[in-house]
Order: sequence, then structure tokens, then C-alpha cells
Amino acid sequence: MNILLTLNSNYIEQLIVMLTSLVKSNANENFEVYIAHSSLDEEDIFLINSSICKDRCKIIDVKIPSGMFNEAPTTDRYPKEMYYRIFAAQYLPEFLDRILYLDPDIVVINSISSLYNMDMGDNFFAAASHVSKSLKKINEIRLDMPGDSMYINSGMMPLNLKALRENQDVQEVYDYIENKKVFFLLPDQDVINGVYADKTVHIDAMIYNLSDRYLSLYNANPKNISTKKDMRWIAHNTSIVHYCGRNKPWKSGYKGELGVFYYYFENLVNRNKKQIVF
Amino acid sequence: MNILLTLNSNYIEQLIVMLTSLVKSNANENFEVYIAHSSLDEEDIFLINSSICKDRCKIIDVKIPSGMFNEAPTTDRYPKEMYYRIFAAQYLPEFLDRILYLDPDIVVINSISSLYNMDMGDNFFAAASHVSKSLKKINEIRLDMPGDSMYINSGMMPLNLKALRENQDVQEVYDYIENKKVFFLLPDQDVINGVYADKTVHIDAMIYNLSDRYLSLYNANPKNISTKKDMRWIAHNTSIVHYCGRNKPWKSGYKGELGVFYYYFENLVNRNKKQIVF
Repeated sequence: MNILLTLNSNYIEQLIVMLTSLVKSNANENFEVYIAHSSLDEEDIFLINSSICKDRCKIIDVKIPSGMFNEAPTTDRYPKEMYYRIFAAQYLPEFLDRILYLDPDIVVINSISSLYNMDMGDNFFAAASHVSKSLKKINEIRLDMPGDSMYINSGMMPLNLKALRENQDVQEVYDYIENKKVFFLLPDQDVINGVYADKTVHIDAMIYNLSDRYLSLYNANPKNISTKKDMRWIAHNTSIVHYCGRNKPWKSGYKGELGVFYYYFENLVNRNKKQIVF
Repeated sequence: MNILLTLNSNYIEQLIVMLTSLVKSNANENFEVYIAHSSLDEEDIFLINSSICKDRCKIIDVKIPSGMFNEAPTTDRYPKEMYYRIFAAQYLPEFLDRILYLDPDIVVINSISSLYNMDMGDNFFAAASHVSKSLKKINEIRLDMPGDSMYINSGMMPLNLKALRENQDVQEVYDYIENKKVFFLLPDQDVINGVYADKTVHIDAMIYNLSDRYLSLYNANPKNISTKKDMRWIAHNTSIVHYCGRNKPWKSGYKGELGVFYYYFENLVNRNKKQIVF
């Protein structure tokens, strides 16, 4: 399986926990992990490489050429890095037809094989939505989305690189950003939603992008009274837990039930560290 | 490591989850698991053998001879099986100096190497106590225990087979049972406490025998305000979680935080099952 990450030094520890959980929870798979970045931090790459199970997980360091995306609109708030996800097809090797983008604040607790091999048709992206109906309307207006679309979370997305390579119009994205950027809250997520609402397949957040907030909203909804999800259901059925937003299990004051999965894999990383002799 | 279990067909599923957690959480160890029983159920043994990782875990089926413990006091409530733990040294192979007894309603979430290799001196048993001070007094009187002893939980106990083989007085146990059995609440646990209070080393329940009830009592105690244990602490430091009492995570109405560890390993067992071709 091909995995795409973008390097953020503030999240190296979490990224290692995430990769460990990915490999442990998918025992029969091999991973090629592409890490996109603009400035290599050798220490970070070394730390990642020395912390993971190298038998089944190969790290591929992808330096984005300094001239790339120079013509793209950027500001301090929206640096060039926002294009690494949307325009992954522009710089990843041409032999890759599909890749799974993952944020570092994720843990994988079950197989992602069905997700990775899903039928995406001609769509560019697949993603899950965390958004309630009321917020959905606001986002539709803010970002000019078609009326029946869902505002998706861009932290976990299979990318159809083949379709993107063949049909993505780079200028369309740049134009959209120029026109809409005053309305943006989360730069690249808003762009993917605004430009590609009709090029995105929807996936169940409960299985592939579960956050503490989504879980508690779901369980509190009277409509879901007979399908409430408890920890047993989650441990058996959910594949991807996403600690998005400010409520992070590695920060003090964390409130949530899902943090225990992070702690479990964080502890596995610590145990492995003790065994490594430098 | 040598592990002792007693076979109870009502707990086969839990026993498989427990063995899986033991092997997974102790990646550098090999296990010889002695299963003591009076009547072999071949289907159970087959199920256990086909569900666990046989590379590092060998099941040894220990049939207790039908004449054994015939002279021991028994009743319907206290059958012969109660002696399998107290008198393990009577029937286990003589080359075994130490064994760790584990109840099936346990999961192992971290290394048990320090526990297994602890210095037991001349003591027969090591065990943890879940009991508060007020209950401690009642047990002392009920079972005639020395004043400074702790009522221990017998679900997780390293057994010093060498010392037991050399110094255990079988008749002393039988006599105690005859005299005290009207006061018993939990047969073999009461006997170990009543007869062997001064032959038992105490271990920290928070690390080696953590139950939901013990955790909530500990955290609710104002004395422990600065050392409260959260899920991160537990995932990193606790080795053995014990779902003792009626509150079991595999039963409906379960209330507790620790069940998630059971669900995690239960799910690993289910995943493995899918891979086994009969």
C-alpha cells in the first residue's frame, strides 16, 4: 500500500505512533510511505526510520523542488505546503495509481484494505464528513458547494492519482483560491471541498475517520438510539481514529474515550525504543 | 515462562483472548502453558490450540488423576478443582521451580518479566490485594489472619513451586478447611489467605492485578489526588488487567474504562480466526 504523509516536525512523535499502528493493524500488508516536505530534516527522517518496523514499511523521502507551486497563490496563513495534498499527482512518481493520504494525528486500529482498494470510479478523492446538517448549509454557502454535497475532512483521503494526473485542472484550483480565500477557515480542506465536491466519494466516518467529537455527536443523536456505538463496536469495526481538532490525547486536559488507542500504540513505540541499540 | 491455567469451558473465549494478549504483550518470551483439568474436553483444547500463536506458546494438557485430592474436604460449592491452585506443586512436573497462575478473565497489556522473575524468597505465593482497610479487618477476623496481613486476590499469582514442594503441609490446609469452611466466601482464595498470609509476597495491584473497581476506588481516594491514574498511565505502566467480579466487558451492562483492552485483544483473536484455514 502507498501512503502519503507531509512532514511536520511538531508531529514527529505522533507520526511514528501512527505508522506503528498502521503496520501492526495490517499484518499482511507492506507499506511504501512517501513523506513530502520542502526542507529535509535529516534527524526527523532518521528518527522515523529507526522507530518503525522496516520489514514491512519503507520510507520514501520526497523533496518538493523549490520552484514548484511558485505561481500558486500563497500567504503566511496559506503556505505552499497546502498544495502537497491537492496536487500530489504533480510530484509523485507516475507509476503510482493510488495513494492514501493520512494526517499524523491518526491511529489505525484495524485493516484498511477495503478502504485502500475501494472503487473510486473517475473521482479524484474519497473522504469522510464529520459535519452536522446545520453546519453543512453554512459550508455550502461559504465555499459555493453544490447543494447536496457534504463538507469532508481532508485528514484521511484515498487519492486517485491516475484520474488526478489525467483530469485535474491546476488553474481551476488557483482561480478558486484567488476568488474565495477570504472565506477560508482551513485552507486545503476548504479548497478540496470547494473545487472537488463532485469529484469526491463519501466514506463512513464511523469506520474510517472517527473522532471523539463525531462519536459523541452520533451517540447523542436520538435518531441513532438503536445503533449507538460503544468501545467494543469501535475496537472491532473502526479502522481509523482521528484526533482532529484541539482535543489531542497527548496534550493535557484531553477529554475523550478514543485516546486509549493512541496510548496503546504510543506505548508499543516506547517498548520498541528500549530494544533498539544505536 | 511457565503459566498455569485451570480449564473452565464457560471461559474458553476469554482464555484465548488472555493467551493472545500475553503473547502479544511479551514479544521476546516463549510460554509453556499448563492447563489443569479433571476431564479433558478435546474440543476445548483444539479450539485453544488453533486460536493462539503456536510459535511462542505451547499448550500442555495436565489431566489431574481421578484419585487425587480424594481425601480432601469437598462439597458441591467447594469441588476438588479448588485444590488445583493451592496444590499445584503436587501434580506439576518436578523440573518446574516457578509458575504464574492466571485466571481466564485477565488481559496482559505489558511485559510481565519483572513479575515473573521477582524475588520470592521462601514465600509460597505472590499476589495483589484489592481490599480497602475496613474490609481488611473483617477478613482478618473471618479467616483468622495475622493482624498486619492483606486479603489478596488469588486470580494472578506467581507460585514458588520449589518452596511449595519442599515445605507445604497438605494436612494443615485440609484441617483449616474443615474448621473454617462455614466462614468461606470464595473457597480457594479464602484458604490461601487464611493459611498462607505469612507466606505471600505482596505486589502492586495497580501494575499487576488492576480491576475497574480498584481503579475507581483508588482515584476517588483523596489521599491519591496527586497520583491519580489515567488511561495513558495505565496503557504505559499496567501489565495485567483483571475483570474480576460480576462486571465483565463481554457481558451486557458492563461499566468500566478497562474493557477496551479486552475488546482490543478480542478483536485480534477474531482477525486471526479469519486467517485460519481448517
